[in-house]
Amino acid sequence: MWQYEKRLQYPVRVDTTNPTLAAMIIEQFGGADGELSAGIRYLTQRWTMPTGRAKGILTDIGTEELAHWEIIGTLAYKLVKDATIDQIKGTPFEAHYVNHGKSPFPHNAAGSPWTANYLNSKDDPVADLHEDMAAEEKARATYEWLINVSDDPGVTDTLRYLREREIVHFQRFGEALMIVEDYNNSKRFY
Amino acid sequence: MWQYEKRLQYPVRVDTTNPTLAAMIIEQFGGADGELSAGIRYLTQRWTMPTGRAKGILTDIGTEELAHWEIIGTLAYKLVKDATIDQIKGTPFEAHYVNHGKSPFPHNAAGSPWTANYLNSKDDPVADLHEDMAAEEKARATYEWLINVSDDPGVTDTLRYLREREIVHFQRFGEALMIVEDYNNSKRFY
Amino acid sequence: MWQYEKRLQYPVRVDTTNPTLAAMIIEQFGGADGELSAGIRYLTQRWTMPTGRAKGILTDIGTEELAHWEIIGTLAYKLVKDATIDQIKGTPFEAHYVNHGKSPFPHNAAGSPWTANYLNSKDDPVADLHEDMAAEEKARATYEWLINVSDDPGVTDTLRYLREREIVHFQRFGEALMIVEDYNNSKRFY
Amino acid sequence: MWQYEKRLQYPVRVDTTNPTLAAMIIEQFGGADGELSAGIRYLTQRWTMPTGRAKGILTDIGTEELAHWEIIGTLAYKLVKDATIDQIKGTPFEAHYVNHGKSPFPHNAAGSPWTANYLNSKDDPVADLHEDMAAEEKARATYEWLINVSDDPGVTDTLRYLREREIVHFQRFGEALMIVEDYNNSKRFY
Amino acid sequence: MWQYEKRLQYPVRVDTTNPTLAAMIIEQFGGADGELSAGIRYLTQRWTMPTGRAKGILTDIGTEELAHWEIIGTLAYKLVKDATIDQIKGTPFEAHYVNHGKSPFPHNAAGSPWTANYLNSKDDPVADLHEDMAAEEKARATYEWLINVSDDPGVTDTLRYLREREIVHFQRFGEALMIVEDYNNSKRFY
Amino acid sequence: MWQYEKRLQYPVRVDTTNPTLAAMIIEQFGGADGELSAGIRYLTQRWTMPTGRAKGILTDIGTEELAHWEIIGTLAYKLVKDATIDQIKGTPFEAHYVNHGKSPFPHNAAGSPWTANYLNSKDDPVADLHEDMAAEEKARATYEWLINVSDDPGVTDTLRYLREREIVHFQRFGEALMIVEDYNNSKRFY
Repeated sequence: MWQYEKRLQYPVRVDTTNPTLAAMIIEQFGGADGELSAGIRYLTQRWTMPTGRAKGILTDIGTEELAHWEIIGTLAYKLVKDATIDQIKGTPFEAHYVNHGKSPFPHNAAGSPWTANYLNSKDDPVADLHEDMAAEEKARATYEWLINVSDDPGVTDTLRYLREREIVHFQRFGEALMIVEDYNNSKRFY
Repeated sequence: MWQYEKRLQYPVRVDTTNPTLAAMIIEQFGGADGELSAGIRYLTQRWTMPTGRAKGILTDIGTEELAHWEIIGTLAYKLVKDATIDQIKGTPFEAHYVNHGKSPFPHNAAGSPWTANYLNSKDDPVADLHEDMAAEEKARATYEWLINVSDDPGVTDTLRYLREREIVHFQRFGEALMIVEDYNNSKRFY
Repeated sequence: MWQYEKRLQYPVRVDTTNPTLAAMIIEQFGGADGELSAGIRYLTQRWTMPTGRAKGILTDIGTEELAHWEIIGTLAYKLVKDATIDQIKGTPFEAHYVNHGKSPFPHNAAGSPWTANYLNSKDDPVADLHEDMAAEEKARATYEWLINVSDDPGVTDTLRYLREREIVHFQRFGEALMIVEDYNNSKRFY
Repeated sequence: MWQYEKRLQYPVRVDTTNPTLAAMIIEQFGGADGELSAGIRYLTQRWTMPTGRAKGILTDIGTEELAHWEIIGTLAYKLVKDATIDQIKGTPFEAHYVNHGKSPFPHNAAGSPWTANYLNSKDDPVADLHEDMAAEEKARATYEWLINVSDDPGVTDTLRYLREREIVHFQRFGEALMIVEDYNNSKRFY
Repeated sequence: MWQYEKRLQYPVRVDTTNPTLAAMIIEQFGGADGELSAGIRYLTQRWTMPTGRAKGILTDIGTEELAHWEIIGTLAYKLVKDATIDQIKGTPFEAHYVNHGKSPFPHNAAGSPWTANYLNSKDDPVADLHEDMAAEEKARATYEWLINVSDDPGVTDTLRYLREREIVHFQRFGEALMIVEDYNNSKRFY
Repeated sequence: MWQYEKRLQYPVRVDTTNPTLAAMIIEQFGGADGELSAGIRYLTQRWTMPTGRAKGILTDIGTEELAHWEIIGTLAYKLVKDATIDQIKGTPFEAHYVNHGKSPFPHNAAGSPWTANYLNSKDDPVADLHEDMAAEEKARATYEWLINVSDDPGVTDTLRYLREREIVHFQRFGEALMIVEDYNNSKRFY
């Protein structure tokens, strides 16, 4: 995972110092539909998937999401690392600052801490894959709201890239659902 | 319940586009002493009430509170539905927006999610009705703080109406408490 | 809603006193994929649905889920209302009892309180309806696990009925998704 | 506070080793209506009370509740301090043990952590005192459920003593409410 | 404890009305590394400490932290008690105000409620004392971030005093760790 | 990470079907001092470490902890995968089963969901590394309690291995602390 990230970490371009945008971007670091939720969800659901291919898809995407989690953390950090106290005061980042300084932290844009309640794992592959498809759609929507508020061109580029990945993941989970349904049907007939 | 709401939904007048006020109003959609807390609390306490009249009061008020919950959601939504991104950026609503767009969501004004820890149900009608009376007093107080910050005349009117309802509910729970205490006394003597 | 429940409340047959089963059934009263999550989720997502039919489906199913929430509460209550202290001690219901007596409470089978983090509302109808379809699949799975542990024939019958409803809801949300996608396509073309 | 506790700590008699009862007693160490909730609530509400006597009642009772919190912790600890692993395994205390060993911890009997969501402070003395009266009623109810499940005579004695204190506190908060209402009335007239 | 506070309460000088700073200061009233976390943590860990001196250090510092908790509450309250509605509107304190008016409340600067998850008690004195030393370091860091954003000289003075206390506590926990390790070694040898 | 796990996954020997032990083991999958807490903590603290070596230690150990997280999940799953309903009913695993079937889920042994409140990241390397050392001590203590309740020889072997790793990590974080303090001193002098 972190090897993969090494390749990605340089293109994470941030053009401005912008504590407000950092406070918003953190939504995908520790919010309901963020990258941490995605990674932990898919890696938790692996044990009860019925086929090797379904397990493999969850492993691949779960690992990729953790790399994206690091990208988001890097964006948030770069947006504030050179900020002065005066640039921070009066922004939504100030409440984050008095607890965490400039370090990223897994909470959402409103400061509510990440919780495993954001995900589930049901030991029912059809239910799990529907949750996964929904998760990708919700992550896509979050990226759209973030792109709307971003006025940093580098950040916007990365957010667009990550949004596209969610669409690809949605499709791959759709394929996994078909694999699982085929498997369930074959089990019933033989 | 929702039939009742249909009658009420038109008078929910909102005169301005005001994302900051929407972010504050959401306190009564998903905050500690908001309408969801009230509705879920009273409907949860029904099973262990000792008399039909006490159960009926909880059912009536619980149902009315869910209708008020919808009124609050409508206020919050109308305050932002025509807002541009520029009107949202830099307000306390921005953190809500990057997660939920313009949809209401059951968290409080600070973005802390609604939790059943806001209520209790003790299988002790005297304790439960004291909690209910306290809940109405606390909801009244919240409406007063919200009225203080509201600068939208239509919203203020509705908040005043809802505050009045909490006072009426407080009195009705006082009556229910007397019913229950009479019942408890009669049980002891016969 | 509560009128509807009046019709349903008598067939809620419970054949045994069974505190352990009550403690498990409470999963659908206040757990992640239970009836409260469903009701609050659908009624919260209504404001941002783009067509009247989609709104109507959310209103109908959300209202029905709150009625099911009451059915679950009734099952849980009937399973313990005649239990002696000796029947409660040593069961998983004991931890519930020392806080709530025999009243239902919106937490899950492990006693974790209901939280709005179990749902989302994204102001993106496609994402919301995918979440709804996933929610129905997860509720179905939960009912299957509950049916597996139930040894009360009356409770099992009701759980089977509720499981079937989740399958119907899943299909109706699939229809709502098609309505919304048609609407989105038509908007793009004209 | 802790001086007060020194006087009280010896009469805290525990007659048995009983991990299950320890797991239940912990409800009042870290549960919704337990002693920690009471202490933190009253000490938080002091700043906005309008008269010195009302502040004094909150300070006195808040401090006493923290001493009771220590009594509960002592009960819970004594019930397990001599327990062998075999006495712990298979009881509801086992889940507590693998995290906290035999130390008390502020969660409820179901293991849900203490949260400030259990209380409120509204800057409205009438609302706050109603919450306080409700809190005392709910604490009383919890002690009754605990007394019902206790089969340790020493523990039962202490629980009865603590239940009585909640009744006294309820009455004192009723007096504080009259003081505050008199004050409010006098303010209006002069 | 509260006697001790009486001595301290007068030097708590606040020079300005500053709702934004109040909203930040509340971090140490109900945040992860604030005074409430410290007090509850140390007083919870007392039962399983192996020597009287270690217990005494925990009791002393735990009690002092609760007094500091009250100092922080006093700072937060004084910063807003004379604020007009217009001074509150548009600041991060507004979300606090619509729920709690001007009363302090144990949540962090972002409004996330205090939870016992911020601390642990492991029945392992070496682990507990390491947690305590870490807690003091984290509290010190929080005070530094708060001092950076404070522009009220009186508040800054008190924050500096409290920061110094954390450094002293860190050293005292280091001594307690040596006491415990000596005790553990002596137990092994004899 | 997951490559590393592939090597490790076969030696994860489990000798029994034991739902109660699975319910306890889950403490390290989603509890306060479990492997997920460790992994997320260290990977979150990387951005603000002042030297490459300190960052590297956090990356290495954080990645290893995520691999250990998978080992724990595998232990929990293997302990229940062949369990019949009758073997599950009446055990502490039953509450887990009705929500998650036999899939692992990131909550603790009492069923309380994992939350980011279990960790912090302060943008203060000295404070962060003290938290990390404390975390390792607390994880070690948890492993000791788990080893005490385990009666599965294969599981016990793995738990002993993981406990040893925590001791090694504690030492490495001690080294990182010295690196950071040297760095801080050098900065002050030149």
